[in-house]
Amino acid sequence: MALVVKKFGGTSVGDIDKIKNVARKVSKAKDKGDDLIVVVSAMSGETNKLVDYTNKTAEIPDLREYDVVVSTGEQVTIGLLSIALNAMGHKAKSFLGFQIPIITDSSFSKSRIIKIEQDKIKKALKEGYIVVVAGFQGIDEKGNITTLGRGGSDTTAVALAAALKADVCEIYTDVDGVYTTDPNIVPEARRLDKISFEEMLEMASLGAKVLQTRSVEFAMKYKVPVMVKSTFTESGGTLVTEDKDMEEAVVSGIAYDKNEAKITLVQIPDKPGIASKLFKPLTDANINVDMIVQNISTEGNTDLTFTVAKSDFKRAMEIIKDIAKDINAKNVVSDQSIAKISIIGAGMRSHAGVAQQMFSALAKENINIQMISTSEIKISCVIEAKYTELAVRVLHEAFGLDKAK
Amino acid sequence: MALVVKKFGGTSVGDIDKIKNVARKVSKAKDKGDDLIVVVSAMSGETNKLVDYTNKTAEIPDLREYDVVVSTGEQVTIGLLSIALNAMGHKAKSFLGFQIPIITDSSFSKSRIIKIEQDKIKKALKEGYIVVVAGFQGIDEKGNITTLGRGGSDTTAVALAAALKADVCEIYTDVDGVYTTDPNIVPEARRLDKISFEEMLEMASLGAKVLQTRSVEFAMKYKVPVMVKSTFTESGGTLVTEDKDMEEAVVSGIAYDKNEAKITLVQIPDKPGIASKLFKPLTDANINVDMIVQNISTEGNTDLTFTVAKSDFKRAMEIIKDIAKDINAKNVVSDQSIAKISIIGAGMRSHAGVAQQMFSALAKENINIQMISTSEIKISCVIEAKYTELAVRVLHEAFGLDKAK
Repeated sequence: MALVVKKFGGTSVGDIDKIKNVARKVSKAKDKGDDLIVVVSAMSGETNKLVDYTNKTAEIPDLREYDVVVSTGEQVTIGLLSIALNAMGHKAKSFLGFQIPIITDSSFSKSRIIKIEQDKIKKALKEGYIVVVAGFQGIDEKGNITTLGRGGSDTTAVALAAALKADVCEIYTDVDGVYTTDPNIVPEARRLDKISFEEMLEMASLGAKVLQTRSVEFAMKYKVPVMVKSTFTESGGTLVTEDKDMEEAVVSGIAYDKNEAKITLVQIPDKPGIASKLFKPLTDANINVDMIVQNISTEGNTDLTFTVAKSDFKRAMEIIKDIAKDINAKNVVSDQSIAKISIIGAGMRSHAGVAQQMFSALAKENINIQMISTSEIKISCVIEAKYTELAVRVLHEAFGLDKAK
Repeated sequence: MALVVKKFGGTSVGDIDKIKNVARKVSKAKDKGDDLIVVVSAMSGETNKLVDYTNKTAEIPDLREYDVVVSTGEQVTIGLLSIALNAMGHKAKSFLGFQIPIITDSSFSKSRIIKIEQDKIKKALKEGYIVVVAGFQGIDEKGNITTLGRGGSDTTAVALAAALKADVCEIYTDVDGVYTTDPNIVPEARRLDKISFEEMLEMASLGAKVLQTRSVEFAMKYKVPVMVKSTFTESGGTLVTEDKDMEEAVVSGIAYDKNEAKITLVQIPDKPGIASKLFKPLTDANINVDMIVQNISTEGNTDLTFTVAKSDFKRAMEIIKDIAKDINAKNVVSDQSIAKISIIGAGMRSHAGVAQQMFSALAKENINIQMISTSEIKISCVIEAKYTELAVRVLHEAFGLDKAK
């Protein structure tokens, strides 16, 4: 008898019929004899509606109260799913963050899980209940309701699986797994049967929106095998796990991200302290900087380019223009029509020439590379946005990802 | 400095603009220097939507989970109201049932309050917070979410006022007080400045839907003065209180109820145990019987008539038809076209002839009385439904309720 955590996202519980469909899936699994913990998100659209309410009520909503409002979406779905399961003859019981409790820090609207108490869940499982848990929410040590940030239900599921040492955490979504790249761009994209945590982490943070980044970090840290499956079909699935049985692929997938903008400070003095002077105000303004590239200096001056999320672009430019004057930059130029294309693969570590292969594939199509950044298992290039789909296609082919293995 | 509990119903917080309006009202009161506890209902329509969800999910929804779902409506409004108040520069903090906690029994969907802890609210008030409390909900001793039944937010407000010994509990609604009768029927109906708990209780249970019956019982038991006011105007208001300064009016108001149906068992044996045999199955089916009239027997047989809510009528008839056979009743007849007209007044106790005055006023208009039932401060008559408005008007006039006092 296994202990399985199943998580269903907003589109999987989007209306009453879909909730009943989830209940049938859960019922089938329960009949196999497994112990089940089911984590659900809010009905799709519901969280947006609630966030909208708070924004209409105040320009800057109080965050403690924001969490009180937005956490209700998941409360509705756990109740409804439990009602559906009970009506099917199962014993099912819903749990809110405070009832378990799932203890978080007090960073309202983006809290982090500190601890999950196990007694009540274990007791309910022992009594034969299907345990239905509200995703996305917790409670801080003072008894305030907290939420984990958008997509936080994935994190709830993985954290529960880690705490209770579940055999597997199944994430049900509207796609049947993780693909070598976006099938909308490359019809030959293949579903991966397995992928390592590290690769998944790079994929997730690069815009392959199957799993929330933090949930993958959690899964990697606590070695929780995560199975990504479709709510609407039985077949398929991708296992995100520590070890891949097969030999590691050099490149496992191609990711892209069109949501960044590029800012360049032209001809700034190449001396210590400049970078810190630049990026501290951005950090203070809670603006996340992704890629940073600085070239060797010529005549004591250098150019520095970095990327930020498009949604932060305006605020970042205002801050940077002020600093540019302070540090005597010659100019500030920016570009919002860029895309970041990345190749990801754990096998890269032991294979030379992967970067060269990427650059030459892009060069063959006359796609100019504006910025390059690399990690152990990833190479990212910034290119002109209009070449996004072309670049994804040529790289997918260049690394043989369309060929079954 | 007074401690005031203010309660705003669903229509008062029906959308974001209305919530902001409530925030302005609360803000004004806070600026006067009072300590404030604000209880709010769900946005109008919201609870119905949630109840509807549960009914679509299962024919008979599990009641523990029903409460998990329907309690979210109030959670949204306390968050939004607190956001609005904070944005106006006040310190405001929302409290859910479990956070106070408001301890109830475990009768899901119709729980009763057992105890209200005071420490957290008192602390928040001392720190200068406006305390915003979710109406309608509590928590049982095992940590399950419970709800108090429809209209339960009134009860939450009165119970908080009682527990914290508030100076007054103000119930804000869409009318500006309690009237001598329904102004839609009698344009001359007057707003009462004061009314006793007992009179209000009779009014509330007879269909004058200003206050939930249980909240009045609570107010009476704990001697909490309740002020009924309009959210949308400053003037008016009716104080529901223990003592009326002025001499008690013989009749304070006229109430009517068209939501009952009448069932008569014709010629049943007049012997001990029959009534119990009749009403036990109805009680078991959770059908509330209102008026019961049994006449003296003739030739060892008697007729027994009782009324039930129209919504229970079908189920009641099914049960009664079976019993009728068992006890050898000659026949079962029923009538859904009835109305119950009641006159209410604490002064009735010390005035003879009030009943006669009522009967003769109805007789003058040729309105036949089908059933009569009396309490210390109330006389109710069942009449044909088509005479409802006429009966209300003639009684309102007969007892001089249109004349200012």
